[in-house]
Amino acid sequence: ETDTASSKSLNSEGCFLEDALKAQKREAREGRGRHFPVQACSLGVQAALPSWRPLVGPFFRIGQMSNVELDDELLDPEMDPPHPFPKEIPHNEKLLSLKYESLDYDNSENQLFLEEERRINHTAFRTVEMKRWVICAMIGILTGLVACFIDIVVENVAGLKYKVVKDNIDKFTERGGLSFSLLLWATLNSAFVLVGSAIVAFVEPVAAGSGIPQIKCFLNGVKIPHVVRLKTLVIKVSGVILSVVGGLAVGKEGPMIHSGSVIAAGISQGRSTSLKRDFKIFEYFRRDTEKRDFVSAGAAAGVSAAFGAPVGGVLFSLEEGASFWNQFLTWRIFFASMISTFTLNFVLSIYHGNIWDLSSPGLINFGRFDTETMVYTIHEIPIFIAMGVVGGILGAVFNALNYWLTMFRIRYIHRPCLQVIEAMLVAAVTATVAFVLIYSSRDCQPLQGSSVSYPLQLFCADGEYNSMAAAFFNTPEKSVVSLFHDPPGSYNPMTLGLFTLVYFFLACWTYGLTVSAGVFIPSLLIGAAWGRLFGISLSYLTGAAIWADPGKYALMGAAAQLGGIVRMTLSLTVIMMEATSNVTYGFPIMLVLMTAKIVGDIFIEVRLVGRDWGWEGLYDMHIQLQSVPFLHWEAPVTSHSLTAREVMSTPVTCLRRREKVGVIVDILSNTASNHNGFPVVEFAGDTQVPRAPGAVDRPSHTCAWPRAWCVDWKLCTHIDSEEALPPLQDASLPRVFKLFRALGLRHLVVVDNCNQVVGLVTTKDLARYRLGKGGLEELFLAQT
Amino acid sequence: ETDTASSKSLNSEGCFLEDALKAQKREAREGRGRHFPVQACSLGVQAALPSWRPLVGPFFRIGQMSNVELDDELLDPEMDPPHPFPKEIPHNEKLLSLKYESLDYDNSENQLFLEEERRINHTAFRTVEMKRWVICAMIGILTGLVACFIDIVVENVAGLKYKVVKDNIDKFTERGGLSFSLLLWATLNSAFVLVGSAIVAFVEPVAAGSGIPQIKCFLNGVKIPHVVRLKTLVIKVSGVILSVVGGLAVGKEGPMIHSGSVIAAGISQGRSTSLKRDFKIFEYFRRDTEKRDFVSAGAAAGVSAAFGAPVGGVLFSLEEGASFWNQFLTWRIFFASMISTFTLNFVLSIYHGNIWDLSSPGLINFGRFDTETMVYTIHEIPIFIAMGVVGGILGAVFNALNYWLTMFRIRYIHRPCLQVIEAMLVAAVTATVAFVLIYSSRDCQPLQGSSVSYPLQLFCADGEYNSMAAAFFNTPEKSVVSLFHDPPGSYNPMTLGLFTLVYFFLACWTYGLTVSAGVFIPSLLIGAAWGRLFGISLSYLTGAAIWADPGKYALMGAAAQLGGIVRMTLSLTVIMMEATSNVTYGFPIMLVLMTAKIVGDIFIEVRLVGRDWGWEGLYDMHIQLQSVPFLHWEAPVTSHSLTAREVMSTPVTCLRRREKVGVIVDILSNTASNHNGFPVVEFAGDTQVPRAPGAVDRPSHTCAWPRAWCVDWKLCTHIDSEEALPPLQDASLPRVFKLFRALGLRHLVVVDNCNQVVGLVTTKDLARYRLGKGGLEELFLAQT
Repeated sequence: ETDTASSKSLNSEGCFLEDALKAQKREAREGRGRHFPVQACSLGVQAALPSWRPLVGPFFRIGQMSNVELDDELLDPEMDPPHPFPKEIPHNEKLLSLKYESLDYDNSENQLFLEEERRINHTAFRTVEMKRWVICAMIGILTGLVACFIDIVVENVAGLKYKVVKDNIDKFTERGGLSFSLLLWATLNSAFVLVGSAIVAFVEPVAAGSGIPQIKCFLNGVKIPHVVRLKTLVIKVSGVILSVVGGLAVGKEGPMIHSGSVIAAGISQGRSTSLKRDFKIFEYFRRDTEKRDFVSAGAAAGVSAAFGAPVGGVLFSLEEGASFWNQFLTWRIFFASMISTFTLNFVLSIYHGNIWDLSSPGLINFGRFDTETMVYTIHEIPIFIAMGVVGGILGAVFNALNYWLTMFRIRYIHRPCLQVIEAMLVAAVTATVAFVLIYSSRDCQPLQGSSVSYPLQLFCADGEYNSMAAAFFNTPEKSVVSLFHDPPGSYNPMTLGLFTLVYFFLACWTYGLTVSAGVFIPSLLIGAAWGRLFGISLSYLTGAAIWADPGKYALMGAAAQLGGIVRMTLSLTVIMMEATSNVTYGFPIMLVLMTAKIVGDIFIEVRLVGRDWGWEGLYDMHIQLQSVPFLHWEAPVTSHSLTAREVMSTPVTCLRRREKVGVIVDILSNTASNHNGFPVVEFAGDTQVPRAPGAVDRPSHTCAWPRAWCVDWKLCTHIDSEEALPPLQDASLPRVFKLFRALGLRHLVVVDNCNQVVGLVTTKDLARYRLGKGGLEELFLAQT
Repeated sequence: ETDTASSKSLNSEGCFLEDALKAQKREAREGRGRHFPVQACSLGVQAALPSWRPLVGPFFRIGQMSNVELDDELLDPEMDPPHPFPKEIPHNEKLLSLKYESLDYDNSENQLFLEEERRINHTAFRTVEMKRWVICAMIGILTGLVACFIDIVVENVAGLKYKVVKDNIDKFTERGGLSFSLLLWATLNSAFVLVGSAIVAFVEPVAAGSGIPQIKCFLNGVKIPHVVRLKTLVIKVSGVILSVVGGLAVGKEGPMIHSGSVIAAGISQGRSTSLKRDFKIFEYFRRDTEKRDFVSAGAAAGVSAAFGAPVGGVLFSLEEGASFWNQFLTWRIFFASMISTFTLNFVLSIYHGNIWDLSSPGLINFGRFDTETMVYTIHEIPIFIAMGVVGGILGAVFNALNYWLTMFRIRYIHRPCLQVIEAMLVAAVTATVAFVLIYSSRDCQPLQGSSVSYPLQLFCADGEYNSMAAAFFNTPEKSVVSLFHDPPGSYNPMTLGLFTLVYFFLACWTYGLTVSAGVFIPSLLIGAAWGRLFGISLSYLTGAAIWADPGKYALMGAAAQLGGIVRMTLSLTVIMMEATSNVTYGFPIMLVLMTAKIVGDIFIEVRLVGRDWGWEGLYDMHIQLQSVPFLHWEAPVTSHSLTAREVMSTPVTCLRRREKVGVIVDILSNTASNHNGFPVVEFAGDTQVPRAPGAVDRPSHTCAWPRAWCVDWKLCTHIDSEEALPPLQDASLPRVFKLFRALGLRHLVVVDNCNQVVGLVTTKDLARYRLGKGGLEELFLAQT
């Protein structure tokens, strides 16, 4: 029952051992290892294992740690692939992967830590505090600069591309042979996407997608390898430029958020693993807690740079990541956000020629909505709610389609070459579909007074342009702005309808490709298109009443669609308010987002009844499909019947206060143990005496620990009291959950009334319970 | 050493005992008390007291619970009053009062609770969740309506008053004898303030002031008696109307926040203590945790209604109150805020005649700032920072003056009659000073094109009005709007300078009076006045450059002054953005607020060196002067040297699992014990066996407990595991602090390695350590 699969690669553990030995040698060289041989004692570690007792829950019987291999009976029979697929790929959403380690957001209160903290007096604390602000300013500036770089490069390269294609189309429209233009366009796009996809697939796969799910996981306390590396940043930035220029239905906003986080992690740690450089600065901040705080600031700065929404950035960071709200931290996050927007606006104001003018309207992301000309009245509120319902339904459909697509990709398209080919295919198809739609469109609009960037005349009369081309023949971000602000009558309903339909499927197909790309802007674009269509219809119905402005409805549609897909409310409302520089629309936008969320959640539940409790949005779905042990905000509602004794894993490998280093190295290198925390206990003869157990972490990513145990073994015994809550065996799951969530724990030692260690609860033990159809259900744990 | 003063009133305890006995009788009637006599056993409670051991800290020796009477040597010799003052009034900021009880934001996980929770299935949970949303909607609607009521009544009654006085002045200007007008004005004002102050002083003293400090305390977990009662709401609302109409230098915003909180507490609990009515609804929400959540929603709805700033409201609530950030809770808070603004705007749009138009500019609190006409450039940023510095300094001066004034009031003006007389005096002086200034002002402005509401011609030429009167002869809120938006040249620099000076002292004198009134608007008004003056000077210096718009600088000055006084940044930035409907000014406003905060904090520290670590703002100062055991965001930085063993209080009164009811009643009614939590332990003979101790709360405000122990004594032993962290005696103060802050604990049982209870940590034990001049300092505890 408690067997564990030892198929896990020894790679990371091997690395650790090398590191530890190196550290040990270095310590010895520096003369700090003097206490080390004296304190070793002779008892083997096997004796230290506490005898575990059979545990029976009073209400609910759940076995111990059910580690399962990927057996065939777990697979959906219809979806069973004809050939065996590699075991490292998760394929079932009822699995929880054991490969992810947790971050420890609770400072381990061992003696070293306490001594260091006690050395800090008031003045030193000020210096530390000052450094925090300086780091936040640097995060803001760098994130702003990266955003500028992406913006400017995309604008120029995409401009060049559209110019070349436009000239070509103009040439061939006259003399026939537009298929050459199509070929040129599709080839150009595919070439950009080929490069963009190849660097992601072959160099750094974690740079794929928007990066928001990964950052959510990081802030939640799950360590995703390489997610905040410099290499990832470089690939992410190049990748997103190539994807957008390659004409895919993607946005550059998600990647900016990821970029901000990488920058934050890099600066705050004062070193780079990718460059193998340690700058020996900010060493105080080299702990999970501090790193997380800076990464939240980086994510906020990213949002702030992406949408020009500093407050939205702070709220995004808090809504998606933080659990313990601290005023000082929030102020720093806000500062980083503001600096980031400021840097971006400053550079762009120079670039756009409105030098120095930071309030220029060109800096508003989605264009300024002017309330004087676009009022809304109370009568429109039911209409907005109806739009929210539509957005919720469309969002749920989008997510469901993307779910099937992702499952397909996980099973069949897992080789890098295939992934690159798929991305190229999507790029080519996107260009082709767009071309065909433009070609067959008969929606001609007068050129005069229009703001379209690359007007394609095609078969329109002189002085007119093809309106379908205005939507397709542009970067998605600019298309959103046109849909929001172009005067009524710029688009035919037919054009908008076709565009919505096609773009919906294209965006859905694109999200999840092995390219660096976000889903915000495509969602907004789909929503803006059908929202505008909605507005035009209303305008017909009401006889072109003054209030039925298509731009306003495009905005509401965009909010509804995005809300239906990602299911965020507070931060999204504020982001939309800031990106349109309009406070008055806050209330309708909130209504729309709230409705979209509620409807989307209901829809999923109805549609997938018996399958799943449902993900809350596209990001959560992808987190779940990766089998990440993600802790949500609250424990499942019906989990009060479970106690810690029932969820914990046993047996626990324990260490004694004094232990041979060889034994420790053995234990640490034995990957068959299910957890990375080893309670430290005291023994009187063979029985464990009722003493306070501390816990030792397997030092997966911090360097503090090996240093500690080489100096003095006693120092390794963290007196982490709250990790050993004695009567916790009777505590209910929600209570344990709250402890983990509020304190950011990594593991919790469970002891009985006599203070004997009986088990260990980790994040995975908590994340595996969720609400299913028939009440609480358990996920399987697997070494995938 | 551990003697306690038993001077505490038996009132609340007496009430409890009555309640308990009633409950017991009721239970017996209903046949639920059957287990009760069987389980009583004969051991007296004295035997249950654990023997406490002498405790010596390794680094830092601090005695046990140093309860001191208000000895004379604690007093500042200069401030020593000539006559003895009543003991119930705190007078020294180095004291911490023992009279405040804590709220328990951690659900006591006793068997009753667990059984109830386990009964809840998924459907029932949905109903509960739905009820939460309904309650939030009701909170929003009612708060909005109360805000409307205040707005409309103030507008009409103040309008009437100003009309009467204006007619009188106009009459007497011609034929001389303006002293009659002054008399009329002063008498009218004093009369309004007399009533407003009398109801506060005699009926409900807790309704005095802005209410924000009280709500901060409530959200922090300190129970301030009567603070969320219906009676308080009624007094607060009437009081604020009378204060504002009475012409005091006050605003109605703080009281609106308090009103929102009272409404939230009332609705969510489904009963009213003031009305002695129990509506038997929402009984599930009758716990501290749920109540706190709703009160934060109420506070947010209050801000939202006061400033038309729903997002600012959410941030205010989180910045001031919340510690554990939960996404669902935040959404509900946001929903309540939005509904509140919506209700307010809806009613006001009808009232103002722009029926149905929710985006009408008249609904923007401080008038819309239009970015097209008022740009800002990067050159102005140093100017804004300089204004922040000025705001910080002025704010610190304001707080320091108010500190001396408050100390004076605490010592000499504690009788209700005196308080009412002081309030009347302030009202009369305010009217007189304003009149003299208006009378002696020679600042005449053309009436044409001006928006002034009650133009006083006085000695100006026909078609002109007195500009000083425009600032004084209006409600403060309207004066702010004029200073923000009146065209350049509407005010002479002389007028603004005099106004700033006088209003600064008036506002400082007014805050802390026994009237219901806020400090937001007066602060903004002072800042707007000197900001506008600043802008005019700049305009002179630069030769009336186009960018030197006085209105813009009035806005920045207002932000700087308010930031210097209350020291908030994030929520204030957003509130200002929303109240002016301008997103672009977010960055400069943040800069100004941040600078004001930093400068203000430095200033305090320099000025009061050797006295105090310094309060963070006016509200924190008043909280500290009330000796409230308030937990800040983090433990003092140098407190790592303290362990739980050193901060805990001993001896602890323990209960056994089975105990005679008489013994329990004795213990509960004995107010000499320093705490309200009684660990439950098991005994083998005379020695405590190493078993999991739970804890029993003195049921100060919940009804769950007496019900529990009458049914079955066993049910009283909460198995509150995290309240008994055994090795916590070695945990450092910051760690214990974090546990309290993150989990919202009320008390924590400290046990030794053998699981024997050695002490108890309460909020007071943590709140008494703070950073002083020479490092960590301890506050004294007193039964004040």
